[in-house]
Amino acid sequence: MSVRRSGRRPGDPPTRAVILAAARVAFSVGGYDHATIRGIAARAGVDPALVLHYFGSKEQLFEAALDLPLRPAELVAEALTTDRDRVGEFAVRRFLTVWEDPQNKPIMMAMLRSVVSNEYAADLVRRLLAKMVLEPLATQLGLPDADLRASLLGTQFIGLALARYVARVEPIASADVERLVAAVGPTVQRYLSGDIGGGLPSG
Amino acid sequence: MSVRRSGRRPGDPPTRAVILAAARVAFSVGGYDHATIRGIAARAGVDPALVLHYFGSKEQLFEAALDLPLRPAELVAEALTTDRDRVGEFAVRRFLTVWEDPQNKPIMMAMLRSVVSNEYAADLVRRLLAKMVLEPLATQLGLPDADLRASLLGTQFIGLALARYVARVEPIASADVERLVAAVGPTVQRYLSGDIGGGLPSG
Repeated sequence: MSVRRSGRRPGDPPTRAVILAAARVAFSVGGYDHATIRGIAARAGVDPALVLHYFGSKEQLFEAALDLPLRPAELVAEALTTDRDRVGEFAVRRFLTVWEDPQNKPIMMAMLRSVVSNEYAADLVRRLLAKMVLEPLATQLGLPDADLRASLLGTQFIGLALARYVARVEPIASADVERLVAAVGPTVQRYLSGDIGGGLPSG
Repeated sequence: MSVRRSGRRPGDPPTRAVILAAARVAFSVGGYDHATIRGIAARAGVDPALVLHYFGSKEQLFEAALDLPLRPAELVAEALTTDRDRVGEFAVRRFLTVWEDPQNKPIMMAMLRSVVSNEYAADLVRRLLAKMVLEPLATQLGLPDADLRASLLGTQFIGLALARYVARVEPIASADVERLVAAVGPTVQRYLSGDIGGGLPSG
C-alpha cells in the first residue's frame, strides 16, 4: 500500500485553509516567536515551499491568520453605521464577542501573547490594527490625533482582554458582556471621539 | 587561601537587601515562573535556606520585591490628600513616574511579564494590588463595586504600561507624561469614582 507524501490533492480540502488552520494552532501554542514555517507546514501536511508560495513570509502568514477573527473591513463598516455616541459601546461589545467565540479565541490569545512577549510581533499587530481598523475609522470620523487615539484604544482593549481571558481577574472574568460594555464603553468612546487633552476644549 | 562558603558576614551588607536585589533581577529576567529560590540564593551569594529564613516562600519574596516600586501605603495616603476630582490624574502621573525610575523599571517589567505569562503570578499581583492599594483607596472613598472598579483600573494601567514600555507603541511610547495624564486620567477617575453602569444614575 503506497502513501502519498503530500497527503493532499490540490484544492481538496483547500490547501490554503488547511495551512491557515495549522498556522493559527502554531501561533496560539507558541506565540509568534516559536512558530516556524517548517513546523506549520508539517502540521498542515504540506511542503514548506507551498506555505511560502501561498503566504510569502511568516509575517504575512500571521497577518492572514489574524484576519478571520478581526474581519476588519466588516468591523469598520458596521461601526460607521452605528450611532456615533454609541460607537464605544459597539466596539467593546464587538471585541468581547469576537473573543468569546471558541473558533477565534486561540488566535486572539496568540495575538495577545505575541504582543506581550515579542516586540516585533507587537509592532506587527499594532500596524495591522492601525491600518485595517483604527485609521480607516478615525479617517471616516474625521478626528484629530488619530494615531494617539488609536493607541489609547489599544491600551484599553489589550488590558481588558488580559484581565478577562489571560489573568482571569474577578469580577471582570465572569462579568456579563453588557456589564463590561457599560463600564468600558465610555472610555472607548472618549478615546475615539472625545476630549483627550492636547489643546481640544476641555470637559 | 580559604574561601568562606557563604561569602558574606551577617548584616554586612544587609543580607536581606542583597537577597531582595537578587530577587528583583531574577524576576525581571525570567518572570515569576523561571525564577527559583536556589537561583536567587546563588545570585545573592547565600544559602537557599537563608532566603527561606528571611522571606518564607517564593510568593512572599515576590511580594517583598514588588514593595519598593509600589510603596503602597505611601501611595494611598497621597491619593487621599489629593483633590478628589483629580485622583485619576494623580494616579496616572504616579504610575508613570514609578515606571520611568530606572531603579524600579526592572521589577515593574517583571511584574508585568509575570502577569501576562503566568496565571498564578497574575492572581498574586492582582491580590497584592487589591489588598495594598485599591481596596484601602476604595474603602476610604466609600465607593460601591470596589472590586470591579479596582480591576477596571488594572486593565487601563496594564494596557498603558504594555503599550508604552513593552510594545513601545507610538505615539504613546514617546509621549510626555503630562500628555498621557490628560488623556488617561479621566478614564481612571471614572473607574475610581464615576458612573460605571450597573444601576448607578447614568451620565
